Amino acid sequence: MTRRISIFGSTGSIGESTIDLVARDPQAYHIVALTGGHNVARLAEQAIQLKAEIAVTAHEANLADLRARLEGTGIEAAAGATAIEEAARRPADWVMSAIVGAAGLPPGLAALETGATLALANKESLVTAGPLVLATAAKHREKGARLLPVDSEHSAVFQGLVGEEMDAVERIIITASGGAFRDWPLEELKNATLAQASSHPNWDMGQRITIDSASMFNKALELIETREFFGVSPDRIEVLVHPQSLVHALVGFSDGALMAHVGPADMRHAIGYALHWPERRHLPVDRLDLAAIGRLDFRPPDERRWPALRLAREVMAEGGLSGAVFNAAKESALDGFIAGEIDFVRMSEVVEEVLTRLSAVAGLIHAEINLDNVRAADQMARTEARRIIETA
Amino acid sequence: MTRRISIFGSTGSIGESTIDLVARDPQAYHIVALTGGHNVARLAEQAIQLKAEIAVTAHEANLADLRARLEGTGIEAAAGATAIEEAARRPADWVMSAIVGAAGLPPGLAALETGATLALANKESLVTAGPLVLATAAKHREKGARLLPVDSEHSAVFQGLVGEEMDAVERIIITASGGAFRDWPLEELKNATLAQASSHPNWDMGQRITIDSASMFNKALELIETREFFGVSPDRIEVLVHPQSLVHALVGFSDGALMAHVGPADMRHAIGYALHWPERRHLPVDRLDLAAIGRLDFRPPDERRWPALRLAREVMAEGGLSGAVFNAAKESALDGFIAGEIDFVRMSEVVEEVLTRLSAVAGLIHAEINLDNVRAADQMARTEARRIIETA
Repeated sequence: MTRRISIFGSTGSIGESTIDLVARDPQAYHIVALTGGHNVARLAEQAIQLKAEIAVTAHEANLADLRARLEGTGIEAAAGATAIEEAARRPADWVMSAIVGAAGLPPGLAALETGATLALANKESLVTAGPLVLATAAKHREKGARLLPVDSEHSAVFQGLVGEEMDAVERIIITASGGAFRDWPLEELKNATLAQASSHPNWDMGQRITIDSASMFNKALELIETREFFGVSPDRIEVLVHPQSLVHALVGFSDGALMAHVGPADMRHAIGYALHWPERRHLPVDRLDLAAIGRLDFRPPDERRWPALRLAREVMAEGGLSGAVFNAAKESALDGFIAGEIDFVRMSEVVEEVLTRLSAVAGLIHAEINLDNVRAADQMARTEARRIIETA
Repeated sequence: MTRRISIFGSTGSIGESTIDLVARDPQAYHIVALTGGHNVARLAEQAIQLKAEIAVTAHEANLADLRARLEGTGIEAAAGATAIEEAARRPADWVMSAIVGAAGLPPGLAALETGATLALANKESLVTAGPLVLATAAKHREKGARLLPVDSEHSAVFQGLVGEEMDAVERIIITASGGAFRDWPLEELKNATLAQASSHPNWDMGQRITIDSASMFNKALELIETREFFGVSPDRIEVLVHPQSLVHALVGFSDGALMAHVGPADMRHAIGYALHWPERRHLPVDRLDLAAIGRLDFRPPDERRWPALRLAREVMAEGGLSGAVFNAAKESALDGFIAGEIDFVRMSEVVEEVLTRLSAVAGLIHAEINLDNVRAADQMARTEARRIIETA
């Protein structure tokens, strides 16, 4: 049986890994839609290789270029946020949501509404609008809608829960490599350069997520995602620093057992798990030889080094739209760091200040969680963050 | 609902841990039978505490003593191997098989025939007569017969397989602490004293199993058990030296994932898992703090240091009754070491010699696997081992 598949964010790191897996078994898949951003050349190449129905670029300005590249192939071309959402409404069995940022939310919701299985690599969907995403998946469950995690940590937790009862879960532990500045003296962090922050010890990822890894804003988002995805109370979710990035998560049960997921730092594992779920199929990832690896190290997470973790706990306690504010403020702070406007340490200070200021705005944080309100909270947080960055 | 429980080998380390768990919730369990060996005082004490129906000592000579201690309690007393087997035929929902040695096989089979769930801590059952035990469990499955592992490694594998398909299992890795002589120079092993071999770095167990841990004969038995219990071909079963004894086993799947079971070195976990299976319930074992533990180490198993592992692979390749021969030869060699007749290194040489000699006996190894033939192979191996030890 041929499965109908769409990949949102197909030219990014997760999208490319997804295509790597899908392209190994072309008979098994019919590609409905591929979407990308500015890398129109690669998007067109993928669409032609995989014989997609439609390719969509996020930017209207790229449409002519995309059209030209697809001319004569019979593959449709489109552009813009609305076109992406429309592409998500095309019937598909399995949809990869790997768009980076808040823009990933609307197509993900649209895919769930059609009854698709949504493989969620877009962190922001659950961080900014977890209850909305979960409610949408539940509402369309009978049509087949499913939500599957694609972050390595959440996939690891999900795998640790196979065949188990949530009632028996005592704690969930997600690991963090500690990123580029794990071993730096605390007082040196403010001098960290963009190049230093952009180099990850274990994972080969995009620049933004690599910096978020060094600051642990990435792990902070994952804490919130864990809370939303698995419905576990925040005090049962722990972060464990594990420099080798081989143990991705552990689920602690009421009988004291910890079921740990151990595997190479290769996103194709989590993607492949979601692609073949509920089965496990052979995947082209390295097999670990623990005897050769020799040791696995663990440390407690230091909240002085990584204040993002403390902020995530505050966001989880506050709930509502504070996740949307947190994420947007983090994005602005990250932009500021990349642009050289603020130093590495200032990023979390900016985010904390935005959270403090906006939690004082009556009716904002605890407004209904819907697309409009998520967008509004996002915008206000970005505006506030810019103000703070510019007046610093 | 009160569950009917019997504990075979109740005064040993596994038996006591089982009682520790059962005694915490006396309303939940009705104790049918308890059986022990020479420690009649403790056996009687347990029977009175748990209000057992019957207490059985393995030795006829202890019967008068046991009777005297149980006088006026209404608890029956009995003695001998036949009485133990009869006790195993009393209807019970759950039976712990924790008798040490080949004597554990007949009562275990009897319990399965009644349709009980058999929690198997007796390693010899699967090593000497795996196909017979599995066939008996399968034959009485409709009546409720089930086989559950109680060794920490096999329980760990079993937990790693919850909700998974055996088809997707690529390998099973059981860990070994390496025992008392893990770090000794190889040439010093022959000088190891009984006291040195009887001290385990992590687990608090009986003397025999502690020495078997130092020689890895215990792990060798577990390799064979793994092969029988999970039906995985020998080349898919690995041993990994892990000095901290916190990762008990890992299951490697076809997608490259390793699901590891991590927990304290406390047998109450594996016992409690079997007791409450398929549920997980709260157990009074320590919760691990990996950040405080700091590191987990792994090494390849050195077959020069632990020839028992190589012998186990030969036994798995040979099949049939070679497991019974291996186990009996090991027991005799261990007796010889404890008695000071042979040195530590000589144990595996004796076992290897017995295996070589008896594999040449026509019709012995590949006779039908039934109780009589297992007993015959056991006896021949012990006789041969004595001959080798005495002529050395």
